[in-house]
Amino acid sequence: MIKEIRIEDLDPEAFIHEKAEEISAAVGDGIAINALSGGVDSSAVTLLGHRALGDRLKTYFVENGIMRKGEPEQVVSAFGELGVHVELIDARDEFFAALKGVTDPEEKREAVTQTFYKDVFGRLVRDSGAKFLLQGTILTDVDETAAGIKRQHNVFEQIGIDPEEAFGYQILEPLVQIRKDGVRRVAKALGLPESIWNRMPFPGPALAARVIGEVTPEKIETVRIANAITEEELADHDAFLKLAILHEDRVTGMREGRRDFGLQIEVRCWESVDAREGTPTEVPWSTLRRLSSRLVDEVPGVVSVTYNLATKPPSTMEAI
Amino acid sequence: MIKEIRIEDLDPEAFIHEKAEEISAAVGDGIAINALSGGVDSSAVTLLGHRALGDRLKTYFVENGIMRKGEPEQVVSAFGELGVHVELIDARDEFFAALKGVTDPEEKREAVTQTFYKDVFGRLVRDSGAKFLLQGTILTDVDETAAGIKRQHNVFEQIGIDPEEAFGYQILEPLVQIRKDGVRRVAKALGLPESIWNRMPFPGPALAARVIGEVTPEKIETVRIANAITEEELADHDAFLKLAILHEDRVTGMREGRRDFGLQIEVRCWESVDAREGTPTEVPWSTLRRLSSRLVDEVPGVVSVTYNLATKPPSTMEAI
Repeated sequence: MIKEIRIEDLDPEAFIHEKAEEISAAVGDGIAINALSGGVDSSAVTLLGHRALGDRLKTYFVENGIMRKGEPEQVVSAFGELGVHVELIDARDEFFAALKGVTDPEEKREAVTQTFYKDVFGRLVRDSGAKFLLQGTILTDVDETAAGIKRQHNVFEQIGIDPEEAFGYQILEPLVQIRKDGVRRVAKALGLPESIWNRMPFPGPALAARVIGEVTPEKIETVRIANAITEEELADHDAFLKLAILHEDRVTGMREGRRDFGLQIEVRCWESVDAREGTPTEVPWSTLRRLSSRLVDEVPGVVSVTYNLATKPPSTMEAI
Repeated sequence: MIKEIRIEDLDPEAFIHEKAEEISAAVGDGIAINALSGGVDSSAVTLLGHRALGDRLKTYFVENGIMRKGEPEQVVSAFGELGVHVELIDARDEFFAALKGVTDPEEKREAVTQTFYKDVFGRLVRDSGAKFLLQGTILTDVDETAAGIKRQHNVFEQIGIDPEEAFGYQILEPLVQIRKDGVRRVAKALGLPESIWNRMPFPGPALAARVIGEVTPEKIETVRIANAITEEELADHDAFLKLAILHEDRVTGMREGRRDFGLQIEVRCWESVDAREGTPTEVPWSTLRRLSSRLVDEVPGVVSVTYNLATKPPSTMEAI
């Protein structure tokens, strides 16, 4: 049973000191490895690990081809400014190959997870010789896995390390006693820029979670533009999560006066404290109108735009 | 070239008198037939024809299984109160058989149209011996056909009457010089109840136009409940058209704490003068929230609800 540190009991400086000590004690003079996605969880873990281990923590950013516009470069550059070297691994072809022909939502998530752990990160772990893996698991992840909302993963099995061989490995999860709000405070105290500590959550399967049906490089490019516009137009709204989904369903539109079956983009803008429950943000109509026109004008093939009205539950925040 | 009668030049009483005279003159002592859908156009034509011809106009309501909740009974009863006998034809099996396995939007519309004209209405025309068909075509239909937005149909060919044999038939379109706003005034002047003259437009393919993907009796039942709730909750909004669409795409939801791929309903509430252009109604958030909860609670399998933000063009009012 994990002992939760509630937000009102969290002293970020003390927490950082304690966790850095724990990482140091566990790793000793060994080396550790972690994957940075640019999200607040993995960013906080990267800086915690760097405080504890310096260059003995190897940090990788896996460019899977399904990140948001400009994201890989921005993350590497932001950490560079903090003195942390992040190695960019180009694995785009591997991810798109794994996603080809996959339409079932669970299989799609699984394809992204498998490619990440088994093929890409597994290879990096084996090549690095590191025996310690730092992971940004938070308490909500643990809760949702227990509740069957997220699926449980045995990390060793995923990265292709035999359980017997895995005896020598250790996974460190320094954030597992806190939730998203706690992680944000810790990230801020670690000196991360606001663009990171106040960053919206972004799902593991990245933009693949925002394409209904088969994921292709073309559809990812479409949903990438739609997400960039959505984030820009909703920038003034202090929502928990803002996203755009490319539907597979085609709806009727008119182009140059003729009937044309086109694409539909769904926008979601969630109010939430910790992702467990959520309600749609009451965005002013003038903003929604401008957002909708931009999506129709700037995203090729789009003829229709909707805004999510459902709460979580029974909806989830992402579409798949 | 059809000469438009603009709304500001329309004198409903004079129009009714003139059109009834034209119908009388054309039909002489023959008999005429028409299909009543319950929409304002076919309702106005039914009463115009009844004024001109009395019982020599045979009016049929085709129950195609894809009408809204309670609609067939309500239409027959409303006309009964006006002294007009409407014969209800149960053709549900024929329509669902024609729709089975059809997923392409154009083919779906075509299946409904074909079944209506060729199978059902064609049979009624031949059995009735009527040589005059009254149709509720309005000027906007003609414009949209010319612009390629609606597809042109040769009615004789559709109902399976050979063009040579068709020489003896005549189609009468008394509303072809006016648009929807004009038809409403004429319908009101004819003594139709407000529930009819102020009725929302409803598409030819009926609820089949509101199901993306294959149409089945189960999906029609789902979208029928969703449309009834949408009309109820938006009753206070004087919009041009209010509708609910059942998407084929599945989205993630949570039921009893577990991940479950569920259905999504899209609501559209259009402001428009004459259907040529449209903008989404700025419905208050409290209403949208209540509508969304009811759809999620009362429509089996629904986990997500969206509201349309796009304008027409490039969207159309209906989804297919």
